[in-house]
Amino acid sequence: MQYDGVLFSVNTRRESPQKMLGSAIRERRLELDVSQEKLAELVGVHRNYVGKVERGEQNLTIESLVRFADTFKCRPSELLGEAGL
Amino acid sequence: MQYDGVLFSVNTRRESPQKMLGSAIRERRLELDVSQEKLAELVGVHRNYVGKVERGEQNLTIESLVRFADTFKCRPSELLGEAGL
Repeated sequence: MQYDGVLFSVNTRRESPQKMLGSAIRERRLELDVSQEKLAELVGVHRNYVGKVERGEQNLTIESLVRFADTFKCRPSELLGEAGL
Repeated sequence: MQYDGVLFSVNTRRESPQKMLGSAIRERRLELDVSQEKLAELVGVHRNYVGKVERGEQNLTIESLVRFADTFKCRPSELLGEAGL
C-alpha cells in the first residue's frame, strides 16, 4: 500500500489552545509563587477552576482571560503570546 | 455637598473586552471586504454569531478567538493586541 509520503500526524498544527494557555497561566502562577487556591482567590474564581484551566480542560472566555491577566498585571494579549498563541 | 473631586466615571478602565474585541474583528472583516455572512461561513459559525461578536454581545472563548484569528491569518494574541487588550 503506497503512502503519499505525508505522515499522518495526530498532533494538529498546535497543542490545543486550552492546553497552551493553561501552561502559560501555570508558569505565571509559579513565578508568583502562589498556590492554585491562592490564585483562584486573587482572580475571584472557584479554587477547582484554576486546576482545570492549568490542565487545559477549560475553554476560557475572553473575560476570564482578562481577569487572569489583570491578576498577573500583564495584558491579555501578552499572556496569549506567552502561550504561543 | 462636597465632592472629593474624583469624578465618578461610568466607564471603567476600559470598554468591555467584548466590545473592544468586537471592534477589532469588525475592522479585520472590513479589511477583508467580506460581509458578516461570508465571514461566518469562513470561520464556520452561525451567520448571526458574527454580528453579535462585532456588537460586543458575545463573550468569545479562546477556541473561537483562535478560529477568527486563523481565518484572518494572524495570531490570536495579535488580534487581542489590535483590540487594545
